[in-house]
Amino acid sequence: MPSSIDLPVDPPARLLMGPGPVNADPRVLRALSTPLVGQYDPAMTGYMTETMALYREVFATSNEATVLVDGTSRAGIEAAIVSLVRPGQRVLVPVFGRFGHLLAEIALRAQADVHTIEVPWGQVFTPAAIEEAIVRVKPHLLAIVQGDTSTTMNQPLDELGAICERHGVLLYTDATASLGGNAFEMDAWGLDAATAGLQKCLSGPSGSAPISLSERAVEVIRSRTRIEAGIREESDEDTGEPIASNYFDLGMILDYWGPRRLNHHTEATSMLYAARECARVIVAEGRQAVIDRHARAGAAMLAGVQGLGLTVFGDVAHKMNNVVAVEIPAGVDGDGARGAMLRDFGIEIGTSFGPLHGRVWRIGTMGVNARFDTVLTTLAALEQVLRRAGVRVPAGGGVDAAYESWG
Amino acid sequence: MPSSIDLPVDPPARLLMGPGPVNADPRVLRALSTPLVGQYDPAMTGYMTETMALYREVFATSNEATVLVDGTSRAGIEAAIVSLVRPGQRVLVPVFGRFGHLLAEIALRAQADVHTIEVPWGQVFTPAAIEEAIVRVKPHLLAIVQGDTSTTMNQPLDELGAICERHGVLLYTDATASLGGNAFEMDAWGLDAATAGLQKCLSGPSGSAPISLSERAVEVIRSRTRIEAGIREESDEDTGEPIASNYFDLGMILDYWGPRRLNHHTEATSMLYAARECARVIVAEGRQAVIDRHARAGAAMLAGVQGLGLTVFGDVAHKMNNVVAVEIPAGVDGDGARGAMLRDFGIEIGTSFGPLHGRVWRIGTMGVNARFDTVLTTLAALEQVLRRAGVRVPAGGGVDAAYESWG
Repeated sequence: MPSSIDLPVDPPARLLMGPGPVNADPRVLRALSTPLVGQYDPAMTGYMTETMALYREVFATSNEATVLVDGTSRAGIEAAIVSLVRPGQRVLVPVFGRFGHLLAEIALRAQADVHTIEVPWGQVFTPAAIEEAIVRVKPHLLAIVQGDTSTTMNQPLDELGAICERHGVLLYTDATASLGGNAFEMDAWGLDAATAGLQKCLSGPSGSAPISLSERAVEVIRSRTRIEAGIREESDEDTGEPIASNYFDLGMILDYWGPRRLNHHTEATSMLYAARECARVIVAEGRQAVIDRHARAGAAMLAGVQGLGLTVFGDVAHKMNNVVAVEIPAGVDGDGARGAMLRDFGIEIGTSFGPLHGRVWRIGTMGVNARFDTVLTTLAALEQVLRRAGVRVPAGGGVDAAYESWG
Repeated sequence: MPSSIDLPVDPPARLLMGPGPVNADPRVLRALSTPLVGQYDPAMTGYMTETMALYREVFATSNEATVLVDGTSRAGIEAAIVSLVRPGQRVLVPVFGRFGHLLAEIALRAQADVHTIEVPWGQVFTPAAIEEAIVRVKPHLLAIVQGDTSTTMNQPLDELGAICERHGVLLYTDATASLGGNAFEMDAWGLDAATAGLQKCLSGPSGSAPISLSERAVEVIRSRTRIEAGIREESDEDTGEPIASNYFDLGMILDYWGPRRLNHHTEATSMLYAARECARVIVAEGRQAVIDRHARAGAAMLAGVQGLGLTVFGDVAHKMNNVVAVEIPAGVDGDGARGAMLRDFGIEIGTSFGPLHGRVWRIGTMGVNARFDTVLTTLAALEQVLRRAGVRVPAGGGVDAAYESWG
């Protein structure tokens, strides 16, 4: 009998109801298996141009500079920060969970002068608190997570653009966990840069990071752009002082996606196909309809876990639609219960990081899994796992509450 | 009628006989469409561990630290350089084509003290020339491309490990274009770091970069490792002075792939499936058998283009098996002829960069396309395109020579 390593991948069936990655939409899986074309094939450059247009709809923007960074969502974050910030420039990061720490760390490594403000995990910032810090720190860039899955919180961004405009600050947000499942208005909110990933509400695999940049952000980047020595022509200028990364030099990436088509990396064709299809299925359903579906599924899951008698973590009024954190009941082995969900029911739910590790479970309803059947199935299974772990749960309390919420 | 943007990707049929990317093996395309699992699912961590073992075979190494970097091949290059080199340390880059310039540029951006030596495009370095430069420069790292597709040259590496050992220099090679199609012996040649991509001889899509690191390289990286603030426990040490990139911090990437499984990025699951399958099909056929097939197909293509009366560019004795560059005959519009190959025959061949742009075509025989039928088909089409462009070509001269070479 051949060992597993001699065979193609054949993973077990899983319903991924954690904080992401979640199941990919079957249409995205089909797109992934599409045959390749060359990187300058008219079909390929056409798909790149279509992908830019599709993500403008997803980000709700008219930004010409809307492309993919070839890597996971944190590749998009690092590309944004390293391209927008010069060493020594001040960056302000409001931290309300793990991914705020990540933005700060990436900015520190980019040799920025990083300042943070914090609220306890489970809360968000008021616009006033952020403006106060801006006045005090006078940053070049405000870098803030929209939805931090580590706490499930959804930071309101709608007033931050005007605040940053007032103080001459660039505004970047990491929308990895929130985009597609929660309100997001790149242009209306006055954002200069936003990045995401495919593996949350966009129903794709991790490995491609959509990014959109305002004209102001592009100007900042262009002031630092250069052309690679191996393809530079004599007429090309070298503006000196390069961005510290070649791979994440957004000026080069824009020159590759733009009309000059200057060779940089070789675009990750299969992931481009996937990213295009992720956006296409959202645009086909309707951007607002997808957000509404996430709101409805998230509300049903919230009602359901409360109906099971579980305590929800954090400020529920500011929770993302697509994930809820519940406190692990006293006396229950959290990882054991998650293991039973996975092993016996084929359903994955998550734990968390740092101060919440082992204290909460995180349950997602995102992307193609933001559906009523997935909510009911997860609640039914969780009820059984809790009961067998010795927790007194109201029989059918989760499922009934979800039915009532869904309407 | 819906416009193309409303429909799934449906690219034209292409036979990709350029310098890469080439067609993916159908088994790799099927692996890409496999449903996802969670990033800590036992199935997923099992696939990661299997992928490490498979790439040890591909790289011919026993290095424990053999993993994937989530990005295109230059993501692997940047991860290696930024993790191995501290700002101010000396790096020596022998440049014999575009991708040598790329290594130098990435090292410059990492604030290394970069020294280059050059030979004209179409040649390689003697070990003596490299040793002379090492003695003069006294670098911390020698960074050298193995196969540079811009010139088709294959730099001999077999003596460099001993030279570097003698002078206490770390040895890194970029094997993106060569791995799988040409002799490569990580351990026997004494390499400390090697990186690759999937889109050349490994028959996969661009977007995942296999990397292998010797124990000595891992020690250098470990001396700079830290743990992300958002997941750091109180008992964890912070060794200070971080690597300038979070995304490319190989210490963190190794902690994610290793037994600690510390969360870093979310592994790009579909690309991991693809990378695993790329290695699996090579191991199934036999590593040496795959190299031999590339040698045979490359020899047939070389004989064929010479049989058509075309002049081969560069030092043929040091050509990679998997690509040949031919001078564009006088009076022929090179891009027009490439266009006819693509538009009328569905076959892609390449141009080149920098000093060779518009001077040569590059024709590949790599990965799943290193076959006799693809060689014959390409030569038959090229003969017709040359004839119609007004070049006097011997009728059947390419195909006959390829038959004779193949035997």
